Amino acid sequence: MVTSLGKEEEAECFLDIKPDHDFSYHNLPYGVFSTAHSAPRVGVAIGDWVLDLSVLASETDIFSFDASCFHEAALNAFMAQPRAVWTSARAAIRQVLSKGEPLLQEDAALRARTLLPFHNVKMHLPARIGDYTDFYSSREHATNVGIMFRGKENALQPNWLHLPVGYHGRASSVVISGTPVIRPQGQLQADSIDDKKGSIYGPSRLLDFEMEVGAFVGGAPNPLGQPLTMAEADEHLFGLVLMNDWSARDIQKWEYVPLGPFTAKNFATSISPWVVTLDALRPFLCPTSACTQDNPVPLPYLRDPDYASYDIHLEVSLQSAGLPFPHPISRSNFRHLYWTIRQQLVHHSVTGCNLRPGDLLGSGTISGTDDSSLGSLLELSWKGSREVEVGDGSTRKFLRDGDSVVLRGWSQGKDFRVGFGVCEGRVLPAGTKVSSLLAPEGPPVRYGGLRLHGYWRSSATWRVRIALEWKGLEYEYVPVHLVEGEQNSSAYAALNPLGQVPTFEICDLATGRKVVLTQSLAIIEFLDEAFPETKPMLPRGGSEAPLKRAQVRRVAEIVNSGIQPLQNLATMSDITAKSGGALDGKDFGRDAIVTGLAALESIVKGLAGKYCVGNRISLADAALVPQLYNARRFGVDLSVYPTLIRVEKEISGLEAFKRAHPDAQTDAIK
Amino acid sequence: MVTSLGKEEEAECFLDIKPDHDFSYHNLPYGVFSTAHSAPRVGVAIGDWVLDLSVLASETDIFSFDASCFHEAALNAFMAQPRAVWTSARAAIRQVLSKGEPLLQEDAALRARTLLPFHNVKMHLPARIGDYTDFYSSREHATNVGIMFRGKENALQPNWLHLPVGYHGRASSVVISGTPVIRPQGQLQADSIDDKKGSIYGPSRLLDFEMEVGAFVGGAPNPLGQPLTMAEADEHLFGLVLMNDWSARDIQKWEYVPLGPFTAKNFATSISPWVVTLDALRPFLCPTSACTQDNPVPLPYLRDPDYASYDIHLEVSLQSAGLPFPHPISRSNFRHLYWTIRQQLVHHSVTGCNLRPGDLLGSGTISGTDDSSLGSLLELSWKGSREVEVGDGSTRKFLRDGDSVVLRGWSQGKDFRVGFGVCEGRVLPAGTKVSSLLAPEGPPVRYGGLRLHGYWRSSATWRVRIALEWKGLEYEYVPVHLVEGEQNSSAYAALNPLGQVPTFEICDLATGRKVVLTQSLAIIEFLDEAFPETKPMLPRGGSEAPLKRAQVRRVAEIVNSGIQPLQNLATMSDITAKSGGALDGKDFGRDAIVTGLAALESIVKGLAGKYCVGNRISLADAALVPQLYNARRFGVDLSVYPTLIRVEKEISGLEAFKRAHPDAQTDAIK
Repeated sequence: MVTSLGKEEEAECFLDIKPDHDFSYHNLPYGVFSTAHSAPRVGVAIGDWVLDLSVLASETDIFSFDASCFHEAALNAFMAQPRAVWTSARAAIRQVLSKGEPLLQEDAALRARTLLPFHNVKMHLPARIGDYTDFYSSREHATNVGIMFRGKENALQPNWLHLPVGYHGRASSVVISGTPVIRPQGQLQADSIDDKKGSIYGPSRLLDFEMEVGAFVGGAPNPLGQPLTMAEADEHLFGLVLMNDWSARDIQKWEYVPLGPFTAKNFATSISPWVVTLDALRPFLCPTSACTQDNPVPLPYLRDPDYASYDIHLEVSLQSAGLPFPHPISRSNFRHLYWTIRQQLVHHSVTGCNLRPGDLLGSGTISGTDDSSLGSLLELSWKGSREVEVGDGSTRKFLRDGDSVVLRGWSQGKDFRVGFGVCEGRVLPAGTKVSSLLAPEGPPVRYGGLRLHGYWRSSATWRVRIALEWKGLEYEYVPVHLVEGEQNSSAYAALNPLGQVPTFEICDLATGRKVVLTQSLAIIEFLDEAFPETKPMLPRGGSEAPLKRAQVRRVAEIVNSGIQPLQNLATMSDITAKSGGALDGKDFGRDAIVTGLAALESIVKGLAGKYCVGNRISLADAALVPQLYNARRFGVDLSVYPTLIRVEKEISGLEAFKRAHPDAQTDAIK
Repeated sequence: MVTSLGKEEEAECFLDIKPDHDFSYHNLPYGVFSTAHSAPRVGVAIGDWVLDLSVLASETDIFSFDASCFHEAALNAFMAQPRAVWTSARAAIRQVLSKGEPLLQEDAALRARTLLPFHNVKMHLPARIGDYTDFYSSREHATNVGIMFRGKENALQPNWLHLPVGYHGRASSVVISGTPVIRPQGQLQADSIDDKKGSIYGPSRLLDFEMEVGAFVGGAPNPLGQPLTMAEADEHLFGLVLMNDWSARDIQKWEYVPLGPFTAKNFATSISPWVVTLDALRPFLCPTSACTQDNPVPLPYLRDPDYASYDIHLEVSLQSAGLPFPHPISRSNFRHLYWTIRQQLVHHSVTGCNLRPGDLLGSGTISGTDDSSLGSLLELSWKGSREVEVGDGSTRKFLRDGDSVVLRGWSQGKDFRVGFGVCEGRVLPAGTKVSSLLAPEGPPVRYGGLRLHGYWRSSATWRVRIALEWKGLEYEYVPVHLVEGEQNSSAYAALNPLGQVPTFEICDLATGRKVVLTQSLAIIEFLDEAFPETKPMLPRGGSEAPLKRAQVRRVAEIVNSGIQPLQNLATMSDITAKSGGALDGKDFGRDAIVTGLAALESIVKGLAGKYCVGNRISLADAALVPQLYNARRFGVDLSVYPTLIRVEKEISGLEAFKRAHPDAQTDAIK
């Protein structure tokens, strides 16, 4: 068994990690996590921290590939990369965490945003699992089950030594460790496992766990019809997790002939949240327990030239409701699998089935040769014929309500571990209502404390008010009296150095920081992106959306940069003063409005439906309304802009626009 | 059997549809389609047209619900709606197509964009199939298979009449009608179906079809652990498609004990592209062929109070390589299923399995009672013991290379049909390389003919050049000589009524129309959205992106609307002229630059990394560089803006920015 780490061993991590910690500097498993106010993204477990790869991706140059995949709520996009990228990512992460690297060590702010304490994060499923397949690759497990149900002579089916037997499982019910499992009710054999008298409906009496390891598929998907070869297998195996394939034995017995397990297993499959890569496990490559496959030798397509496994200790514990700690009831090892994950992968695709990144391959229950290494209660209790001690004085044949099943797995190096963390799930009584347990979560609320500093009659302030009212967002309105020069106060300058309105403040709840935004269009675009569940200010959806959005922005910019800057209070006063009265700023402003609105009329004429662009309220309307109001104050004749006037009339009846109107503001001077 | 349509019958469609057309006004099946230059979206088949629901969703008010789901490349979001929304959508679509409704009939342009001829569209899988499950619900099929392999006495397994036997299938290999199927190679029984001598590797010799109907699940997913009841079933059944569950009998026979079919079926499952809703099939509700389920009566959870089916004629044809038309070899009916789709759905969830919108439930092979109604070659050839005529003088026991299998299905009304179209697939020889057949498609190229009208030294033109160069987009550059007044020519005014540069032209390849965009920031945002595969000009990805994008837009707007409008050529000349020389426009412009850059410096100082905002090139940098160039031309002292100068220096070395520089343009005056 190899446990030296070669060149990787030379580097050291700047973080303090205990030698028996699962998440050592040599491990670096990937997972998907979120914090209270921010969305799920990709991280790496290191000691008691989660390293936020999304921050590293957007704020540093450490990755030599497109690292936008780390912003996603699932590992699929990263898993879809070639192995060379996985290796490169690992090298970059090791470098960032190494003693010699100043990036995080010398930048406390970046470090605080990048290394998050474990207790502050919530874990999610590491991937969107397209398809989940479960194998049956432990010879000891298959033999035990065969002996129980068919006797010693016919223990293994004729095909078992010729191919890795597997079946398609249910992807939708794969859940993350920590999710409770409600005892399933279904059709089951009336009296006992062997009874064939028919079925009843009721709670499963023979609820069991299965200690498994799951492999996540990676790399580019093989095209349908093009099988993977053994030589390609390593490119398509990303990493491993612990897996508990919960099984209702009495339901399974009744339903599984002839098409395999169905409702007996599709109620839940638990996996651990951190995906341990094969790169991390490389030092623990070892011979399989079987050593060789020579009786029979597999068909050529299925022959694994290495026929190697990984030395991963597996342990299953049971924590009954009364126990403070889980009590170990079985210990096994990943190397006991007769069929390797490479063989599972290749056989899965033999007839041309396409395997996609994020697909999950379960190993099947991993049992060893002696009674302390059996991977299910079915085997531990030998079909209910013997009692299993669970550490609190009580015994089990199958699981009771309140029992928690805890899987652990780790590879042990000389002075470090590559561990999997835990895969845990507690059995709740049949019929437990899930509403209280698994209420669907909305997206995290990321921003709060919306505050708008502005002036009742300022066009730019008004635009932002329109967006806030249209979207139904609550906000605080803080008047800045432009005519009295409040915008030039030192307090306001600290917020907005240009001394303009509006200034928008929000609290980023994920970081606790107050953030200042200015520029009305930038603020409105932000509101549209930050509150996607509210009414849009820019057209969404469809392949025509980019063009429609461009036209909306175009109309808004004609006002925002083409007209308004030339007729705002500051510009006009400036012109009057600097020209010594030779040019009245108001005349200059009026000219700009007349020229600008003429262009706007001709453009909007070609774009308008009910509103400025098509039949939906947009940013363009938020720009138009204040500009027409200004034009009236300047005495501009609007009758030559019939489209603009028509659209304005449509808009004027909308409640949100009424609430945003200057006259409705607290600082309005009437 | 009911074939009257109730109230719906009263309306008529304004389109001309033949009475035997599958896609009648009473049908209105949903599908996902694309055209040459535009992305997949949702449509409805009506006669020889596809009604583009995405256009109706964004340009009309016909839908009384949020119809953004019709912009998506899959029906999942629409399927996830409650049944009331499906019914409401159907009513709106019937109204739009009715004789009395002017919306499409009186607007030729909208009609042309909304009703697309069938031959111009390409069909895609109607949904992202999360999980695919196949049942085994035809008593005749199960009995036939049972007799063949176990003899008449044990034809049906003990559980068959107690529950709808089913197994999990492979979702990744569900393909759309028209996709060829490569003969699978795998492990198969060495000599014949009954041989148990072991396995060989090779092409399947017993390749078969299975005539099935698939049901798409809809509605909100039931939470894991909360089974669906019979009363809830209709809320969760969206519609039906035809399905061919291709099967390699020799592989299946060898592998399927004890865990069910695996590689024998996971190489391909074909479905028809149009999902026929249960609303459309309602007139064809009828008793199942079994009439009752009383021996045994199902357990209470599984008792279907209606126990009704739909009268859907099913036909399978085989078109051998030499035949010009498919030759019918079997005719059956959907009503022959013993277990209803409601029972399948409820049983699937009995132990708590969660069913999600877009999940696919296969019926299992649908065989009738006589020899002409068998749903597979296994049954038609009775396990290879008799020959099946295929219309060209040759016969089959199983499928040959070159054979095309065509499924059809329809419900026949008095003078109309509700049909499914076809589900077709041709068998290609084992080992066919898929690269030539199923090359992965990139996203459709939607825009072409990029043309930029601008002036070498115009800031706004320069910004757009930076974006085009940074993104590596090819474009034509058309100089507009501002100093010579070319922007005021009538030809240019037709393009851009404001007489400003830049003007951007593109061709929308999906519609063939030339589109004009103006306003530099709107153009750049468009380029970023329309060419997402190129380098971004706004930060992408992650929950921090909206804030980062807001800061980028803020910096760009300070230049675009805060500084540049006050110092551009037109404004400055205007001020000089209108003030009679009392105020030199250049002095006014210089002041605006000095004030603006001071604010910019203080803001960028807090946002900059290597570049204006963080460490990535963005729209902010495209705004900064031309503004600093202008400042130098005005003789502004830049040393007081150290951050801006430092960032500019970082940028100046980038090749894209060098290519975008005014001095590198064809109209540069040096």
